[in-house]
Amino acid sequence: MAAPPSGIVTLLTDFGVLDAYVGIMKGVLHTRAPELRDVVDLTHGVAAQDVLGGAFQLLHAWRWFPEGTVHVAVVDPGVGSDRRIVAARHGGHLFLAPDNGILAPVVGADAEVRVLDVERFALPDRSSTFHGRDVFAPTAAAMASGTPFEELGEPGALAVELTFPEPRRDGDDWTGEVLLVDRFGNLVSNLPASVLEGSTDGRTDWRVDVAGRDVPVLGTYADAGPGELLALVDSFGQLEVARRGGDAAGLLGCGRGEPFVLRRDR
Amino acid sequence: MAAPPSGIVTLLTDFGVLDAYVGIMKGVLHTRAPELRDVVDLTHGVAAQDVLGGAFQLLHAWRWFPEGTVHVAVVDPGVGSDRRIVAARHGGHLFLAPDNGILAPVVGADAEVRVLDVERFALPDRSSTFHGRDVFAPTAAAMASGTPFEELGEPGALAVELTFPEPRRDGDDWTGEVLLVDRFGNLVSNLPASVLEGSTDGRTDWRVDVAGRDVPVLGTYADAGPGELLALVDSFGQLEVARRGGDAAGLLGCGRGEPFVLRRDR
Amino acid sequence: MAAPPSGIVTLLTDFGVLDAYVGIMKGVLHTRAPELRDVVDLTHGVAAQDVLGGAFQLLHAWRWFPEGTVHVAVVDPGVGSDRRIVAARHGGHLFLAPDNGILAPVVGADAEVRVLDVERFALPDRSSTFHGRDVFAPTAAAMASGTPFEELGEPGALAVELTFPEPRRDGDDWTGEVLLVDRFGNLVSNLPASVLEGSTDGRTDWRVDVAGRDVPVLGTYADAGPGELLALVDSFGQLEVARRGGDAAGLLGCGRGEPFVLRRDR
Repeated sequence: MAAPPSGIVTLLTDFGVLDAYVGIMKGVLHTRAPELRDVVDLTHGVAAQDVLGGAFQLLHAWRWFPEGTVHVAVVDPGVGSDRRIVAARHGGHLFLAPDNGILAPVVGADAEVRVLDVERFALPDRSSTFHGRDVFAPTAAAMASGTPFEELGEPGALAVELTFPEPRRDGDDWTGEVLLVDRFGNLVSNLPASVLEGSTDGRTDWRVDVAGRDVPVLGTYADAGPGELLALVDSFGQLEVARRGGDAAGLLGCGRGEPFVLRRDR
Repeated sequence: MAAPPSGIVTLLTDFGVLDAYVGIMKGVLHTRAPELRDVVDLTHGVAAQDVLGGAFQLLHAWRWFPEGTVHVAVVDPGVGSDRRIVAARHGGHLFLAPDNGILAPVVGADAEVRVLDVERFALPDRSSTFHGRDVFAPTAAAMASGTPFEELGEPGALAVELTFPEPRRDGDDWTGEVLLVDRFGNLVSNLPASVLEGSTDGRTDWRVDVAGRDVPVLGTYADAGPGELLALVDSFGQLEVARRGGDAAGLLGCGRGEPFVLRRDR
Repeated sequence: MAAPPSGIVTLLTDFGVLDAYVGIMKGVLHTRAPELRDVVDLTHGVAAQDVLGGAFQLLHAWRWFPEGTVHVAVVDPGVGSDRRIVAARHGGHLFLAPDNGILAPVVGADAEVRVLDVERFALPDRSSTFHGRDVFAPTAAAMASGTPFEELGEPGALAVELTFPEPRRDGDDWTGEVLLVDRFGNLVSNLPASVLEGSTDGRTDWRVDVAGRDVPVLGTYADAGPGELLALVDSFGQLEVARRGGDAAGLLGCGRGEPFVLRRDR
């Protein structure tokens, strides 16, 4: 489980890129971990204080990095409160985040968790408003520099549960919802590809109902005509509705939480 | 032609920065090419599936990097179809992109082209929707790590032509169009600086008609008064219309495709 | 004062991220300074030509980087005019910017300043429109590679003053204004934390009037109820008005320049 440090730190925040907040975190990282290979932005476009949206992005991103990478997630509506900060080790990777649920779907129940000893790792005179700079960045620098996981704090468990909404089975059908609208206007649902088991290769015996439209499940974007809607298994392994060469969410006028029903074509 | 790898990979996509797609590509790059110096974002703000817009950005950016850099362009409306992926070598640089025309204006007709052997370079179990992660990133990692160009696939040629709209000469005048509106609201045209040959140094014997306005051609922004429109040769070596200290596109209410006429002042 | 180069260059511009302008600057940096550790984006989201806004971001960011870092600020409405370019050394860091005031609040009156010898450091055939690429990037590469500060040009002083609006004392009260609205909708004022001296620990004996609302000064976000407005000392050491879990600027419908009055609760 204890991979050597990869020299990579990833950052996921809801800070946006209009202010220098993220740059400041990188300044602290480079100051305290001069041997870092790279600091990689996962995204800073998580909606403000959207813990669930941040968890979704991190869940699908972390495994594509080298073992020994430190993933820092700062979507932190409780900054300045007594919420805890936790470090986790899972699958050969290290994670650091507020204990507000953002790590729960990512590292699962079997992760090793340490409750951060904030006093030991934070910058002196830390603010109560910008822990990205004052706590997360110096701690991540220590983790990326090889501080043993066991020294980060006392063993513990994640205190806050966070689960994505579960799809519901209705006979042959599945009722889920839209979890994410991506930059292309694709509607990513909470239905995993596994619910299609037993379908034909072309999956044409399934259809999706969303926003009042009846959409065929196809193999890839190119199986639909230009401008047509289709459903397919996306790169996250989940069912999505897309519009070939266009913006499904814009066309359908819907977003997160929209019901998303998969049914056998009868 | 075979410069040693610079250790730099550039990325140009239409993925935006709200999702972790670009970060995931960097994860694959860092996993498979641990010796990379840097992965540089050219832009991820190309309009969704705007192959021409992506080609324009890449055309003006690649030459400013060190020889031996790998430039990856993923604006890929055909992902999941049987469109090919091509690698090209031109001017001491390496390029990787879908064969949809995006490289055509960049590398020209004399580039060496290989049709990518996707099976050899892609990740196992690749998706049909996210080739940035599953094909482009691992292939770019191989290219940046010194895989010989000849091993990338069979020799070939770019299958899809893509040319920027050509300006038309009308006697002494030139009729072109707006190719790009940049972040400052500057209207970048398809008229190259060379059409001004024979003009005076100050170029004051030329004028531009755009969106119903008659705009003088000047040497630089500071030659116009505050808030005034001017035309000038921009940093891409093309004629643009700008507003000193302001936003020309906003003022004129126009964008890509707007006719842009250069005429001698009579 | 002469720290060895940290190998880090930071960039702050108003170029946005839709065009490849910033990527092109990084290409020039990597070409001319192959040994760079990293090029860090502070932000490219400064409003177009907003020198004051750029100065504010840089003022609060630079000190978090290692000594020997080169900070490049290109918010440059005068590009192409005869405005000078200046390098400054302050606090063990190096700075490079147009001499339009953007460095004035950052480096103060005691900084060592050199007026850049543009002919010596610029790329050949420089444009009159894109000095980020043609002047700032190659100069920063030289600075980051250890070119002695004294060789950058003749000694001089900043020619343009720029000061943030000063708060005004009215008896026990202070009248300031909103300097910045950040991505969370927090209203950052020009009142420094020091004006609260003599307050209780909880600071509950002070209140802020902004946009017709009477807002208590509290210790941190979590001291307010969900959705409630509060004022607090932010991570920049200045008073701000925030909305817990929400967007104060959106709620109040106000922005930069809005009067911001601190008064003792009576």
